[in-house]
Amino acid sequence: MSADHETLEAEQSFEHYLAGRAALVDAFLDSYLPPESTPPETLSRAVRYSLFAGGKRLRPVLVLAAAEAVGGEASDALPAAAAFEMIHTYSLIHDDLPAMDDDSLRRGRPTSHVVFGEAIAILAGDALQTHAFAVLADPPPPCQLPAERRIRAVAELASAAGAGGMVGGQVFDLESEGRPVDFATLERIHRHKTGALIRASARVGAIASGASEDDLSRLTRFGEEAGLAFQIVDDILDVEGSDATLGKSAGKDARSGKATYPLVHGIGEARRRAEELVSSALHRLEPFGDRGRPLALLAEHMIRRSR
Amino acid sequence: MSADHETLEAEQSFEHYLAGRAALVDAFLDSYLPPESTPPETLSRAVRYSLFAGGKRLRPVLVLAAAEAVGGEASDALPAAAAFEMIHTYSLIHDDLPAMDDDSLRRGRPTSHVVFGEAIAILAGDALQTHAFAVLADPPPPCQLPAERRIRAVAELASAAGAGGMVGGQVFDLESEGRPVDFATLERIHRHKTGALIRASARVGAIASGASEDDLSRLTRFGEEAGLAFQIVDDILDVEGSDATLGKSAGKDARSGKATYPLVHGIGEARRRAEELVSSALHRLEPFGDRGRPLALLAEHMIRRSR
Repeated sequence: MSADHETLEAEQSFEHYLAGRAALVDAFLDSYLPPESTPPETLSRAVRYSLFAGGKRLRPVLVLAAAEAVGGEASDALPAAAAFEMIHTYSLIHDDLPAMDDDSLRRGRPTSHVVFGEAIAILAGDALQTHAFAVLADPPPPCQLPAERRIRAVAELASAAGAGGMVGGQVFDLESEGRPVDFATLERIHRHKTGALIRASARVGAIASGASEDDLSRLTRFGEEAGLAFQIVDDILDVEGSDATLGKSAGKDARSGKATYPLVHGIGEARRRAEELVSSALHRLEPFGDRGRPLALLAEHMIRRSR
Repeated sequence: MSADHETLEAEQSFEHYLAGRAALVDAFLDSYLPPESTPPETLSRAVRYSLFAGGKRLRPVLVLAAAEAVGGEASDALPAAAAFEMIHTYSLIHDDLPAMDDDSLRRGRPTSHVVFGEAIAILAGDALQTHAFAVLADPPPPCQLPAERRIRAVAELASAAGAGGMVGGQVFDLESEGRPVDFATLERIHRHKTGALIRASARVGAIASGASEDDLSRLTRFGEEAGLAFQIVDDILDVEGSDATLGKSAGKDARSGKATYPLVHGIGEARRRAEELVSSALHRLEPFGDRGRPLALLAEHMIRRSR
């Protein structure tokens, strides 16, 4: 079989897995969130508009795949998976606001503030953050996580999403705009802004499934490496991609003077670094055997995106 | 002793209690939050700027007083008290944004977005919401709440702060601006926007202290009645007060066409309704005897504010 054939097969296998898991996540989110008719209706609609905007569900699928790697049940990890997607979506809504990145297009559709106005966009983001903690704390049946695991998941999510993680990363990013950015600063932005939440996705999937501390450490490293690789690949696509494949304005990061990996290191070096990170991440999965296969597919998919 | 003397004594007794408890809350917040020197420094400073802006600490003191009513330890309820103040402060920062109420003065000081810019104000509010759930989930020693109580507190706070509570109330309020508002709509705004969080403050104080379900029900009713009374009194002060006593622009609610109790019912009827609510709230405290005294002082203080 040729290398092209193998690549195609791996990608099809990944797409199949991703579609199945993303459908689980979507069904859960749909049944958990207030319907559009729930007052105040504008808020209910705005929350659903951004959450069901065709996101790739990378973070929730990572939660589920990490749970599978340690032998957990998807039903126990689904609320955590949903929580991570809600936090991610809230951050996108707020990042797109005129006072922040001022983006009018996201995943190929007008952004929340364009459709609902700024006030509702701010409040929809706020409500999504709260929903995320609500679903972790009080998950609907059949999820039956013990209180100890639920509270640990809340602490992990809060630690990754807050000032020491995602929100702090957004501030680092804002502060770096239009300035020369060195390697250390760039990795700090990535580690906080996107890395912390991706790392925590892997951790919380494992925690929800009662992983051993050793397995938790392995999946933490996996999450760190895969998360940074994901961000580098995203930066490469921003330079090389088109509006259609990105679903956002291509080249926008470069135009706005935002720090990106290819801008600091060049495309070749960026691609090499991403391959190295994914290779190391795959190595972490060896002790999990076949149960680590979904996580491996996820990591390999990232690298294929960058080629 | 004259009625004036009694009033004066009750107020002094309340001020003494309030000052002591508020100092506990402030010391806890100060030691819990990242110092101003923590990167990103702008964010650390913005979070502290709004949190230490001279707020009355009504919600955290209510948490502590409810804990005392059922015989709990202040040290176990302090993280929850801090969490409620952080949620309240985040909501003020976001409410003041140009896209929302566009307020440049709060508690007598320039609002967050005036000082730090809109982007940082949005992110400081976001970070404060996350901090609130973090401190509930992973409280610092000597707090030793069992996981069951912590997770219940997270669920209560999320339920009160989100789309079905505070954030939903802010949307109801925005949607009512400039329109004629009837009694049912006005109470719906109050019940969601401020009532849900005040009610939850009383509940979480009780939950943190392992209250019986009967005591929890009593304190829930107390929180509902005291919360609505508080909002009515706030509306009265907005009509009658000056910028100095309010620390915000007096008459602003009326000028912006916002729905307020005195606007819908007249001052006399508003005052009568507040007294009725406080009287009923005080009645709920009878089974707690002396341990309910701090809560009673809190409720009585509200009514004195309105006279």
